[in-house]
Amino acid sequence: MSAARLEEFRGKIRSELDSVVDFWLRHSHDKVHGGFFTCLGRDGTVYDELKYVWLQGRQVWMYCRLYRTVPRFHTAEILEAAKAGGEFLRKFARLSNGGGEDGGDRQWKCAFCLTRDGRVVKVQRTIFSECFYVLALDELSRVTGDQDMQLEAQQMMEKLIFWVREDPSGLGRPQLPGDTPTNSMAVPMMLLCLVQQLSEGQGPEVAAEQYRDLGSWCVEQILQHVQRDGTAILENVSLKGAELPGCQGRLQNPGHALEAGWFLLQFAGEDEELQKTAVDKFVELPYKRGWDGEHGGLFYFLDVDGRCPTQLEWSMKLWWPHCEAMVAFLMAYSRTRRPQLLERFSEVFQYTFSHFPDAGDGEWFGYLTQEGKVALDFKGGPFKGFFHVPRCLYMCEQLLDELLLPSDGP
Amino acid sequence: MSAARLEEFRGKIRSELDSVVDFWLRHSHDKVHGGFFTCLGRDGTVYDELKYVWLQGRQVWMYCRLYRTVPRFHTAEILEAAKAGGEFLRKFARLSNGGGEDGGDRQWKCAFCLTRDGRVVKVQRTIFSECFYVLALDELSRVTGDQDMQLEAQQMMEKLIFWVREDPSGLGRPQLPGDTPTNSMAVPMMLLCLVQQLSEGQGPEVAAEQYRDLGSWCVEQILQHVQRDGTAILENVSLKGAELPGCQGRLQNPGHALEAGWFLLQFAGEDEELQKTAVDKFVELPYKRGWDGEHGGLFYFLDVDGRCPTQLEWSMKLWWPHCEAMVAFLMAYSRTRRPQLLERFSEVFQYTFSHFPDAGDGEWFGYLTQEGKVALDFKGGPFKGFFHVPRCLYMCEQLLDELLLPSDGP
Repeated sequence: MSAARLEEFRGKIRSELDSVVDFWLRHSHDKVHGGFFTCLGRDGTVYDELKYVWLQGRQVWMYCRLYRTVPRFHTAEILEAAKAGGEFLRKFARLSNGGGEDGGDRQWKCAFCLTRDGRVVKVQRTIFSECFYVLALDELSRVTGDQDMQLEAQQMMEKLIFWVREDPSGLGRPQLPGDTPTNSMAVPMMLLCLVQQLSEGQGPEVAAEQYRDLGSWCVEQILQHVQRDGTAILENVSLKGAELPGCQGRLQNPGHALEAGWFLLQFAGEDEELQKTAVDKFVELPYKRGWDGEHGGLFYFLDVDGRCPTQLEWSMKLWWPHCEAMVAFLMAYSRTRRPQLLERFSEVFQYTFSHFPDAGDGEWFGYLTQEGKVALDFKGGPFKGFFHVPRCLYMCEQLLDELLLPSDGP
Repeated sequence: MSAARLEEFRGKIRSELDSVVDFWLRHSHDKVHGGFFTCLGRDGTVYDELKYVWLQGRQVWMYCRLYRTVPRFHTAEILEAAKAGGEFLRKFARLSNGGGEDGGDRQWKCAFCLTRDGRVVKVQRTIFSECFYVLALDELSRVTGDQDMQLEAQQMMEKLIFWVREDPSGLGRPQLPGDTPTNSMAVPMMLLCLVQQLSEGQGPEVAAEQYRDLGSWCVEQILQHVQRDGTAILENVSLKGAELPGCQGRLQNPGHALEAGWFLLQFAGEDEELQKTAVDKFVELPYKRGWDGEHGGLFYFLDVDGRCPTQLEWSMKLWWPHCEAMVAFLMAYSRTRRPQLLERFSEVFQYTFSHFPDAGDGEWFGYLTQEGKVALDFKGGPFKGFFHVPRCLYMCEQLLDELLLPSDGP
């Protein structure tokens, strides 16, 4: 594929990123309470004022990352919005801010959903709100140089590690006799993402000291999801890496596997064996199993034995698996330079750009039917914020910038 | 509409009920542990052995009701399966059977999901598992004459009333500052259903004494969902019956409103005002708002302002709203004899019978796309058991039997 083709991708991706950033700058800022509205209708109108902590944290992270690393986004408007988002999070997301009497796990637990003015609506008994809190605070502190914020991110990371590797009881979920402890893909993926966030820019010795062991543990946990003699990635396995019975055990989530693929590729560095596993098993395989040969696009869920998943939305085409697939294939290509991977990127790009973006009002639709028709027409919702779309476009732009660099002369 | 047309409906409904009962008799019985498999594939194969307590309770209830009231189902096979199901429930559904040390709410709480051999997998912090437990035990005790079981059902009913009307803290959900207490349609509907179950066949004095006040309270709570000057039924309102902000407040669930409609009609008896409200607001209105003029069938969720709901499955056509609509229109017709209501019944019947039943392997598909294509091809799943389909067919058969009785001569 010619450089001209790569240039063409970059042009489209770059202008789409500008348009998406513009959409959120215009519609999502809560200038009264700080933080972000994320329930935005087709035209950007706020249709619900609830603030989902995952999405607050992700938007702070994304704004700061763009501000810090992309010159055209190094603007006061983006910085101010990110700071107001970070302030909102620190003020309201933690359930008992400032160390309650128990002094233990409870003071680190974050809400899942808040009212516009920061009152707790819902708490999940998982680690994800806390993960996005760490992601936001670490990136924001890199922009502002706030040492106290950096420390808080690291302390919460310690708590996360404790919950995942030592004792989950502080999350509040009772251990039930029939509930098999599970290695669910999301957990090691999320922690690996945080390892890379917190280690970024540190010298190898520092990173090694703090998070090298954790990173290797995450990789090991992720690799346990390669099942069926290497022919499938399963979303849930036992703690010993064995297949689980029933629907839960047979579940595949191709977009999630692809996302894990590029996390692994980033972490692999020069480790060729890990790189090969990431490309073969976490990029090519989920695509092979998850792409809809009839209508195009990636299925949301599949059963590895070809049974019907019980998730009502299994056959829908969601925006984020396509975002992750674009990043995964382009990164796999940039590492291996195998032309077939660039062809796949091109295929996913075609489907994605011809189905998800809304040229009229901006941003992307999130949810299509199996046939590719828009099924839900809002641009932001309880699970769709300023994250997968801009992260994908940002990552792809960066990868294309590298690929298009003039090669070093002799 | 002629008696011949009613006869035709009855013939189809009767033979469909026979076929559906046969499907569950053949495929769902766990002869080792008792109770029922409910995750049944297209051809009846068990694809997951988990046992959902809602569905266990519902199947016990339905078997017993058929056994007790329909001569052709008064068989030893049905009775034995119901008893084995009841035994499984009593042995395993309650979290701490036999009165643990706390002696309080905890000993009444039921699991949501169990392993095949009865170990607890999941507990919901709501009342519904307990409601279906009561439904099952009351109906089973009517069949077997077991006084002890009858007493347990009544005691659990007392606990349910306490949780709903006095103090919900025993359900385990913390009260959060941003979480507005809500009158969610499901709660008074479910309690009204139980009032009618527990009062059935009792003299009016006895029923009056125990549950008359509760029944009136449920009706009052249900009527609070009539909003927007009587032009819409909203699924969630405030405890004072006011509209709530955001998506939650604007949510409509037409099938649920229709189900409430026939619950109200049953409860109304000779109360003409309540009967009129039930027919106008809970039968005709949800149909008017919820029927898909383009493709036919009832939407699952709608936003009262015409915005896009955030539930990914909002536009899908599910089996159970169509079951509830059939019962609601036929009962409304039988009470009022307004021909238009029978026309509506006929319309819903046509859509339902031409889309959901699987003539090949038996039983009904549960989940169609907006366009009416089968989206999930299993016959039973975590939320689809032996309940809505046979209850609908059973109720319609009974209603048609009454409608077709020779009128009393002079």
